[in-house]
Amino acid sequence: MALKTGRGAEAPPFMVMDVIAAANARAATLPPGAPGILRMEVGQPGSGAPRGAAEAAIRALQAGNPMGYTEAFGLASLRARIAGHYRDKYGVEVAPARIAVTVGASGAFPLAFLAAFDVGDRVAMAAPFYPPYANILTALGMVPQLLPCDASTRFQPTLAMLEKLDPLPAGLIVASPCNPAGTMLPPEELSAIARWCHAHGVRLVSDEIYHGLSYGTVAESTAAAFSDSAVVVNSFSKYFSMTGWRIGWLVLPEDLVRPVECLAQNLFISAPHVAQVAAEAAFDCTEELEANKAGYARARSALLEGLPAAGFDRIAQADGAFYLWCDVGHLTNDSLDFCARMLEGAGIAASSGVDFDRDRGSRFLRFSYCGPEAAMVQAPARLKGWLGR
Amino acid sequence: MALKTGRGAEAPPFMVMDVIAAANARAATLPPGAPGILRMEVGQPGSGAPRGAAEAAIRALQAGNPMGYTEAFGLASLRARIAGHYRDKYGVEVAPARIAVTVGASGAFPLAFLAAFDVGDRVAMAAPFYPPYANILTALGMVPQLLPCDASTRFQPTLAMLEKLDPLPAGLIVASPCNPAGTMLPPEELSAIARWCHAHGVRLVSDEIYHGLSYGTVAESTAAAFSDSAVVVNSFSKYFSMTGWRIGWLVLPEDLVRPVECLAQNLFISAPHVAQVAAEAAFDCTEELEANKAGYARARSALLEGLPAAGFDRIAQADGAFYLWCDVGHLTNDSLDFCARMLEGAGIAASSGVDFDRDRGSRFLRFSYCGPEAAMVQAPARLKGWLGR
Repeated sequence: MALKTGRGAEAPPFMVMDVIAAANARAATLPPGAPGILRMEVGQPGSGAPRGAAEAAIRALQAGNPMGYTEAFGLASLRARIAGHYRDKYGVEVAPARIAVTVGASGAFPLAFLAAFDVGDRVAMAAPFYPPYANILTALGMVPQLLPCDASTRFQPTLAMLEKLDPLPAGLIVASPCNPAGTMLPPEELSAIARWCHAHGVRLVSDEIYHGLSYGTVAESTAAAFSDSAVVVNSFSKYFSMTGWRIGWLVLPEDLVRPVECLAQNLFISAPHVAQVAAEAAFDCTEELEANKAGYARARSALLEGLPAAGFDRIAQADGAFYLWCDVGHLTNDSLDFCARMLEGAGIAASSGVDFDRDRGSRFLRFSYCGPEAAMVQAPARLKGWLGR
Repeated sequence: MALKTGRGAEAPPFMVMDVIAAANARAATLPPGAPGILRMEVGQPGSGAPRGAAEAAIRALQAGNPMGYTEAFGLASLRARIAGHYRDKYGVEVAPARIAVTVGASGAFPLAFLAAFDVGDRVAMAAPFYPPYANILTALGMVPQLLPCDASTRFQPTLAMLEKLDPLPAGLIVASPCNPAGTMLPPEELSAIARWCHAHGVRLVSDEIYHGLSYGTVAESTAAAFSDSAVVVNSFSKYFSMTGWRIGWLVLPEDLVRPVECLAQNLFISAPHVAQVAAEAAFDCTEELEANKAGYARARSALLEGLPAAGFDRIAQADGAFYLWCDVGHLTNDSLDFCARMLEGAGIAASSGVDFDRDRGSRFLRFSYCGPEAAMVQAPARLKGWLGR
């Protein structure tokens, strides 16, 4: 007989992953010598792990480190190093006991959601948003509550929006810099939101995975500085350029430390050992990482200068991360189709906004500019030619 | 105000992880030169990854492989290699499209459970069982249904037990060889269970992570050979000795391929890239892996011979894996306390049965014999001295 599937079987794809597959397929059809596809669809640095991180992994493997399970929350030395990062970067004391090393930020979200929320609980977030927030919540039986945001609030939630919520949600996810808009919450706004959440019993989950990648318009601040009840999510995938190593971390409030440890023991056992070794060394690779960032900054400048003349002149304030969130409502009312034609006609892969904002995303698209700088800066000329401007 | 926590915050620990921490702590107190702790608590091979696997990782890192995200289901070459493994080992054709590379078997279970089951669904399993089965199900709002098993059925479920279930559960988890009992389902029994599940709309999840580690008493067989609706879980952690690399796989039935792919995109993005490279090479390391297995076989023989004289004479039929499930009801009615005293007095760390069987586990303990052979074989003499026999 036909077997049942669970509600989780209806989880929507994380469409960027499908766009990657489409771009791979398109690239494979190009004749030799043709200009390649500009890969602006994926939030993955064109650089790999910093050399010092890869070398630490090589050294450990050559020395015969058996790379067994670590404790569920990770190597003590790495947790201490991450705690030191909070001291050095933010001036915030975080006990290493509150740091959980995770299988990327992706692995951190289910742990945090399961420990903090129940089936049926509503968790608020700005729209547009990183699609897995909603997809993971939905797969776990929780309910995303979208707060429609636009350029007037930098695509970020505000205290005024939160104060209007009735009944209150169980949680709120914020991200600064955020994906897809690339915008940030100024420290005083993050602080106000964090304090409001704490006072109203709303669990704040602050996604800080793009920290380190901001371009001077807004200061970076961590929710760990403002709230004892907030959960902070971070990762080695973005600034540290270690996507496929699958390594991230949580800063946990005291009441969630042991629950998340038990969940992690059962759901993950531990994060990949070799990635933990590499991640620890990545903290010593500042020169290379800052050079990567300088490349993103140059690509960002070139795009912000060149895209308007190519017809893309409605771009969210690009404070951080490596994304440009473009309103293309004057060019299309179907950005999914628009992106498919852009891949075919201009050889540029980008992500349709529908993945990030179900209601209004068909008039938006996201360019990612973390690919090779020399490729990224070609985009405006190609787009100009394709759109016939 | 105090913030709520979710039901997931009540997830019990995977106690073995806590026993590891206790054994580490005890080892740290030993004076220099004292005999070390015999680590028989953890299901982790004493050997690391086979040399050829580690060398493949080293080569890829040295060549500057950026180790980015892979597609959600993993590198095509690894998926093809795993499909080939089914052809070579079992004579079963499995399309690579049905193979999902996962973050260990641990990462495979939530994907399978979320795709196949709903909140409130009951999923049956033999007791004793691998604790994360029940803990993951519970964290996801599903309900473990325990089928008490004993030596009379090799601690495995039988068709007769399933036929008595009313109403039927949504799923059944079987494991052969199983953890903690180390027993196996003969092929004809696995086949009968798989066909019964398919016929009755019960989703079978077959945990085959100890395949490759059996000692000739029962033949290994895969549920993929017997059922088009079964989910098969496997891993590189045990036979392939790659625990901390966090790499495993699923063989999916057709109806769950796309649902699990969408869930994996959102919950994991991909398995660790460097571990995928190493895992592919591990298939070429048969000589080293068979030597490891021969060491387990010798340790198993030494323990099966020596433990009865030391007072441990009620051991489940040790068909496979690297565990001995011992009934110690004649020695204690509190195996948690017994294990703590054994760690202190005999310097042997083992896992109390309470982690594996809530109702009857206080009269059982599990020895793992995958540590260094020279250490494992010391256990009977130490136990004999400690128990004063």
